[in-house]
Amino acid sequence: MEGAVYLCLMREQNFSYKQLFDFTKSIFEKIGCSIPDADIATRSLLSADLRGVDSHGIARLSGYIRLWEVKRINAKPHFKVIHETPSTAVVDGDSGLGQVVAPLAMQIAIEKARQVGTGWVSAQNSNHFGIAAYHAMMALQHDMIGIAMTNASPLVAPTFSIDKMLGTNPICVVAPAGEEPPFIADLATTTAANGKLEILQRKNLPTPAGWVQDKDGNPSGDPHVLRKGGALLPLGGDREHGSHKGYALGAIVDIFSALLSGANYAPWVPPFPAYVPMPSQQPGKGIGHFFGAMRIDAFRPPNEFKQHMDNWIRGFRSCKTIAGEEKVLVPGDPEREMEEERMHNGINLLEVIVNDLENLGKKFGVKL
Amino acid sequence: MEGAVYLCLMREQNFSYKQLFDFTKSIFEKIGCSIPDADIATRSLLSADLRGVDSHGIARLSGYIRLWEVKRINAKPHFKVIHETPSTAVVDGDSGLGQVVAPLAMQIAIEKARQVGTGWVSAQNSNHFGIAAYHAMMALQHDMIGIAMTNASPLVAPTFSIDKMLGTNPICVVAPAGEEPPFIADLATTTAANGKLEILQRKNLPTPAGWVQDKDGNPSGDPHVLRKGGALLPLGGDREHGSHKGYALGAIVDIFSALLSGANYAPWVPPFPAYVPMPSQQPGKGIGHFFGAMRIDAFRPPNEFKQHMDNWIRGFRSCKTIAGEEKVLVPGDPEREMEEERMHNGINLLEVIVNDLENLGKKFGVKL
Repeated sequence: MEGAVYLCLMREQNFSYKQLFDFTKSIFEKIGCSIPDADIATRSLLSADLRGVDSHGIARLSGYIRLWEVKRINAKPHFKVIHETPSTAVVDGDSGLGQVVAPLAMQIAIEKARQVGTGWVSAQNSNHFGIAAYHAMMALQHDMIGIAMTNASPLVAPTFSIDKMLGTNPICVVAPAGEEPPFIADLATTTAANGKLEILQRKNLPTPAGWVQDKDGNPSGDPHVLRKGGALLPLGGDREHGSHKGYALGAIVDIFSALLSGANYAPWVPPFPAYVPMPSQQPGKGIGHFFGAMRIDAFRPPNEFKQHMDNWIRGFRSCKTIAGEEKVLVPGDPEREMEEERMHNGINLLEVIVNDLENLGKKFGVKL
Repeated sequence: MEGAVYLCLMREQNFSYKQLFDFTKSIFEKIGCSIPDADIATRSLLSADLRGVDSHGIARLSGYIRLWEVKRINAKPHFKVIHETPSTAVVDGDSGLGQVVAPLAMQIAIEKARQVGTGWVSAQNSNHFGIAAYHAMMALQHDMIGIAMTNASPLVAPTFSIDKMLGTNPICVVAPAGEEPPFIADLATTTAANGKLEILQRKNLPTPAGWVQDKDGNPSGDPHVLRKGGALLPLGGDREHGSHKGYALGAIVDIFSALLSGANYAPWVPPFPAYVPMPSQQPGKGIGHFFGAMRIDAFRPPNEFKQHMDNWIRGFRSCKTIAGEEKVLVPGDPEREMEEERMHNGINLLEVIVNDLENLGKKFGVKL
């Protein structure tokens, strides 16, 4: 009931994409980003809001700016390829915004794929990159499969443990289709992404079983439990329901993103909030990402692949549903529908976020 | 209680690895496999028994032979590369045993990686390949990360559906370490692998919540529910616990293994039991697999990588445990310990499986 009452008090304000775009781009320019960097960072950041991943979009803008204030984000990075082979590269993001580093790294993966069929890029010395889908989707216009993943601040306890050792470490894989929209799977390797938890925190609603545990590793329904020493749980929730698999998937993301690139890993990944001190040990540089691009025609003719993707997608869409469920979704469906809706009707922001953005705007002389 | 009584009646018999190896290899030779093919198929099949994945090892030998009897497995396949680029290949397994096709395909991935940094092979026209870890682990001796996945007979309902559209579609990723044993994550993209269900079926024990649903999509605890129109559930179990993520992961495996290669996909993947009729529609050829190999030194010096892998692994091993839990495991730990134990003490087989193997042996004049 408390949650319901709280809900009624949460006012929202509607903004067009263009309003939020202009505001965000101006802020990035004010901290010193070049115009092209500010542009790509804005597109990338706001793609989260458009696709309904509200936790990873403009709601985090002031958080990124605070990281710039404490010199953990460099607004004028010198992006470098520090090692490469025909199909691979390691890049140093020079502490740039993840939203700038990631598209540059993905572009290299795409170029490598153009040359030798596939391209794989591991990035060190970066920061949080927003939603993985934005970067992976860059592959689609080249008739390639796109892959993006990143490690993140430690919030997740491995199976049987009370220590927070991994981030929500998302994996995104996208594949082009023909007449159907592309397949876009973008998933945190936890039962629930931290953003989903943040929504319950704001609404003061309990978390479902299997999402979090308390500081002693007991099941918990408290959405604020992370602040009390608790942890997010790997996809699966507990051992009986496969949490060792979610843990393994998060670990794979960490290895590809940070052990291959020379970034920080496991509990040593830098925290997102600027006020949280950096871990005492730093085995690498910044946050790590991993990107892949695979040319469809490195395997078979793209038109053949796309026809079969259409057949695959239609097969799932026409599945019989469980009574009471409207339809079977294909990965990417909800986000695409949300994007169409929000591009048309604008984006609602909670009052608390509007206030935060207005304060940010005042600081830099930019009007929301 | 019924389960407990049943348990007491299940007699087991102990065999050395060598006994099972000689028997299995002889059977494969009897159906016409070349000596090298019989050898690799046996190693691959029995690696499941050694690693404790009892459902995927010698317990399935007579099932494979029945597939050969109905001409769905070709004992003398002509393995062909049908398309390639410097970093990719598509191979046609010519209906060979998956245990023969998969190592050949993985070998090509390794060769490509040697040349251009990484290698990626999608295979069509194959059969079930046993455990993914055997194939992925081939990369380790070359200081490469190894990846293996496969689609499989449809047993899994996507979120919100009652139709079985995907197999348990496992993903395996292995990475070398230095002084520590390698990282080996091998996971079905379902809450529980079918083999885990088979064990409960034999013991007549109920399944935990989130493993299966009945024919109408209701939660079920019946381990025999698949025979009654029910389905396995994607990792996560239901929507609230992230089953859409398990579904997406299974879908990614299907796309990489079959849509890229030209194998059958989704509900059209051929069934494992030889008595089950083939699906009426066949959009591709046989079963599909996908393999990857990434040279560590295509990213950074292997000694550096391995030192950090050791640090990573030790970090997880030294995590604080939840009260009552013995230790935090690193992916691959339980299977490695089992392999050491079974190589030394032999492998226990249930009487029902021993009888099945003895009957198979009689048919081909081979003594167990």
